[in-house]
Amino acid sequence: MKELGWTDDGPEIQSAFGALGGDVAFAVHNGVFMPTITGLGTDAQIAKWVPLAQDYQIIGTYAQTELGHGTYLRGLETTATFDTSSQEFVLNTPKASSIKWWPGDLGRSANHAVVLAQLYTLGKCHGMHAFIVQIRSLVDHSVLPGVKIGDIGPKMAFEQIDNGYLIMQNVHIPRENMLCRYSEVTPDGSYIKQGSDRINYISMVCTRARILSKELVPALSKACVIAIRYSVVRRQSELKPGEMEAKILDYQTQQQKLLPQLATTFAFHFMASTLEAFCNQVNVQIKTKGDISSLPELHALSAGLKALLSEICSAGVEVCRRACGGHGYSMLSGLPSLYTRVVASCTYEGENTVMQLQTARFLMKCLTRVDCGQPLPQSVSYLSDPISLHCSAKEKTDYLKPFIYTEAYKHRAQRLITNAGIELQSLLQSGVEQYDAWNSTSVQQARAAIAHCQYIVVKNFVETLEGLKHEPEIQRVLKMLCDLYALTGILVDAGDFLHDGYMTGRQLDLMTACQLDLLALLRKDAVSIVDAFDYPDQQLTSAIGNYDGHAYERLFEWAQKAPTNAKVNLAYEKYLKTRFQSAQSKL
Amino acid sequence: MKELGWTDDGPEIQSAFGALGGDVAFAVHNGVFMPTITGLGTDAQIAKWVPLAQDYQIIGTYAQTELGHGTYLRGLETTATFDTSSQEFVLNTPKASSIKWWPGDLGRSANHAVVLAQLYTLGKCHGMHAFIVQIRSLVDHSVLPGVKIGDIGPKMAFEQIDNGYLIMQNVHIPRENMLCRYSEVTPDGSYIKQGSDRINYISMVCTRARILSKELVPALSKACVIAIRYSVVRRQSELKPGEMEAKILDYQTQQQKLLPQLATTFAFHFMASTLEAFCNQVNVQIKTKGDISSLPELHALSAGLKALLSEICSAGVEVCRRACGGHGYSMLSGLPSLYTRVVASCTYEGENTVMQLQTARFLMKCLTRVDCGQPLPQSVSYLSDPISLHCSAKEKTDYLKPFIYTEAYKHRAQRLITNAGIELQSLLQSGVEQYDAWNSTSVQQARAAIAHCQYIVVKNFVETLEGLKHEPEIQRVLKMLCDLYALTGILVDAGDFLHDGYMTGRQLDLMTACQLDLLALLRKDAVSIVDAFDYPDQQLTSAIGNYDGHAYERLFEWAQKAPTNAKVNLAYEKYLKTRFQSAQSKL
Repeated sequence: MKELGWTDDGPEIQSAFGALGGDVAFAVHNGVFMPTITGLGTDAQIAKWVPLAQDYQIIGTYAQTELGHGTYLRGLETTATFDTSSQEFVLNTPKASSIKWWPGDLGRSANHAVVLAQLYTLGKCHGMHAFIVQIRSLVDHSVLPGVKIGDIGPKMAFEQIDNGYLIMQNVHIPRENMLCRYSEVTPDGSYIKQGSDRINYISMVCTRARILSKELVPALSKACVIAIRYSVVRRQSELKPGEMEAKILDYQTQQQKLLPQLATTFAFHFMASTLEAFCNQVNVQIKTKGDISSLPELHALSAGLKALLSEICSAGVEVCRRACGGHGYSMLSGLPSLYTRVVASCTYEGENTVMQLQTARFLMKCLTRVDCGQPLPQSVSYLSDPISLHCSAKEKTDYLKPFIYTEAYKHRAQRLITNAGIELQSLLQSGVEQYDAWNSTSVQQARAAIAHCQYIVVKNFVETLEGLKHEPEIQRVLKMLCDLYALTGILVDAGDFLHDGYMTGRQLDLMTACQLDLLALLRKDAVSIVDAFDYPDQQLTSAIGNYDGHAYERLFEWAQKAPTNAKVNLAYEKYLKTRFQSAQSKL
Repeated sequence: MKELGWTDDGPEIQSAFGALGGDVAFAVHNGVFMPTITGLGTDAQIAKWVPLAQDYQIIGTYAQTELGHGTYLRGLETTATFDTSSQEFVLNTPKASSIKWWPGDLGRSANHAVVLAQLYTLGKCHGMHAFIVQIRSLVDHSVLPGVKIGDIGPKMAFEQIDNGYLIMQNVHIPRENMLCRYSEVTPDGSYIKQGSDRINYISMVCTRARILSKELVPALSKACVIAIRYSVVRRQSELKPGEMEAKILDYQTQQQKLLPQLATTFAFHFMASTLEAFCNQVNVQIKTKGDISSLPELHALSAGLKALLSEICSAGVEVCRRACGGHGYSMLSGLPSLYTRVVASCTYEGENTVMQLQTARFLMKCLTRVDCGQPLPQSVSYLSDPISLHCSAKEKTDYLKPFIYTEAYKHRAQRLITNAGIELQSLLQSGVEQYDAWNSTSVQQARAAIAHCQYIVVKNFVETLEGLKHEPEIQRVLKMLCDLYALTGILVDAGDFLHDGYMTGRQLDLMTACQLDLLALLRKDAVSIVDAFDYPDQQLTSAIGNYDGHAYERLFEWAQKAPTNAKVNLAYEKYLKTRFQSAQSKL
């Protein structure tokens, strides 16, 4: 980048990033190691380390997760004990489950690590803190004494990343290497907390929010481009007797698989933008006024949306992949690796079920505020709205009215959240302990959190549409996608809407008819819409999804380049040759 | 095998097969090439080719699928034209979309292929026939003139199989190489059909049925073993304040993920056995009496069950994988490859949507028989039963009565199949063309087929239970699994049961409570149940799922063996060394 004069966030690097599908070197160094120092370090620490890191004179990793501990940070076992006599911290990995596991760039590249460890000083534990630890020699890259490092081995994807493990046995680092913007250990071993590090929490929340636009939406949109383009190249079976085999996108079942994914791409794209704007707004509030009052809402929203969108995008990419039949199973289609990559997002940056339950905890707190008549944050203010009892739709076209379906999503969220609250309260009132009551209702809590997020996404799509009044042609197409997204979601979870009689079976039948009409309508625009994503072929890296539609020719061309075709067949010489030759005379 | 004196289907090979997870050489040679010759060849052809193949003096593949054609066989484009003058068939690949694609063992190993091609003789096309074509030299394994072969490149799994492509340009084979048990081309070029090859159809149907027991159930059961064992090793967060971190299987959300998968394993195991017994029975009917009357029912059942079970097993394995958090993403857990392999079954041996629609066509034919008062095959006889209107359950424990939930599944299937039929008929009666009416109702048809299969699975589980009256302890545990399987299925598709008022929301609430109770009960037996599958560690090949529970130690041990740990870091020498060394003075 530097040699080419590219800026850090310029169009060149964006395009290269797109082409590489995120497979870039030193993502953790750039994306976590440096930001952590900037966030948790003092000005002096930042001045010392960041320029070296920026210039790749050091490569850093971020060592948090351990073999036995992931999302639950307080459980981490690595220790950093302050030794007053030497004025050093001594880092240790007490047992197998404490081995640092997964840090990217660690296995083969990094020479430094920000290590998260339990801080001990004067015999007392002060919880998790971050320390800069040199792990490899700057002279010859050898692993330093007391340190053991290696690659953790193959994963479902991310083959290019050297996720590693790290064991430390009495590794000494200077006192200055504890990142101490918010807390410090003085030379005599006293522990001083200065200010709240909650403020730093915003960066983790925003990292989570950025997954939506950087990983989830690109994965699903690329899968849609590939699968929809292939579905107008691929022909199968006679649809109409005597005619040419039909394009598979003309089959209702194929439309039902793919077009809702396309609609979802847009719903999530707009949701990602809105969430990022909210992040920026809260960031400004914090930086300009030190106001962290919106942080809980932002946290709940980003946790729940990350969980919902990663789940649905993973499922959607897989639907697109399977909809391409055998060729979707070939790596050359580009689809298998889109799936194996995007599905990691269900686990990283906070496992999805844990995320849903964090959102649920926030929702339960909001319910308490409703009961006390206190005001609610904007995204949950609907919890104090009166709950409507019946869907007012009477005919098929009523389902094309956004207020009809938005209201349905709202009703479902209100009902599930309220019921989860009632269930929890009733257990507590019957004498069940808090932790037990929470656990016994957690399946229900998670569902309530999902319903909340689903409402937010639909509402956001509708609001985005309203802002496009001056672009009627774009609005027309997006309106169909919005309708399709919302109706498909209701039909998939039909039970939620029938449960209390909010909708009737008859209403759902009309909605089904309306949804099938939308499929037929959108069929016509589908290819234009995916073309409008404007992915260059190089970014799709798919033999079956290119703009020119030459799927078969390119599959054949690419297959010939497979490394297996250049290898000598050793098994032939070793095992098969003499057998085969003996058949010669018999044929 | 021969050297060790193993028999073809003995315990040794079964165990080796289990350990290799099906990753054995020449699966297509043994599983398709030879059986096809046996099925479609004359006695003379069998006598000539099969002994050579059995002795691996020739290796054969089965070349059916083309770049542009898979499940729709009639669309295949490869031609075999009879040349009267030379008494040979001339095989050709007319265009890119006709290139044979996917045959296993073809890319590097096979020297013969059974090629499926459109037969032309005396200027007339007689449809698909099978031909034995030599493709590589028996002397030096070189590709024969007119033939082009290669590997099709990387796939989502099955890395060890050389799936290949095959192009033929005027490849001549002797007249005797057409497999001609059922049809023949005489020396003067006349085409003679002798008997029906429908009889041969049974082998394809049975191959499909065997996927259930050979691929689907093993994949899901292994995933359950790994995930459930790991879930009692892994601890996370304080469940009860002040206590040790809880085993993750003690969380309701984790139970809700894993225990229904365990129940599904049993449901599908019993279903697979029943289907295989049905296959055998039809096979005997055909072989002893030439009676093919049960073939349509068997076909519909195997197609629909293959589609349903492959879909649910794939999803279930993925649920197990994600339930193991980050370690489930590591290949060392064994889970990613269980998924990438099993999910192929949604596509191979008939793409799932096509399979569902074939079942649906059978169901529609059965509806017509009902209308005419004709008798129905056993598995669909319920279609002529009166349809019950309301679920009779009144309290929570009513849902532990198998007739309650079996009746609910039956009702749902009756309703969806009947409605699909009504919809189709009403379109036809309003003048819509058959093909168009079918396509416009196909989403509904597919749903009806799925509901049919779901009823069959539940009914089969209940019937299996009834046969275990003399083993009350086993019956007790299996009863819980059966209840859990059935109730979870209803709750997942709640909308189907609420739609016409068969169940009420209140009833579903009671059922939910009942299902959660079952989770807590089964939690206690879960580990014993998966231990009872009796998979040796060598067959699980999972660092986190071994019997001894030493997940972290083994992950660490296995990771160190990763090939990446033995490689020299070339990037360090080339790009990083001088940069790092320049940092030395600054730190």
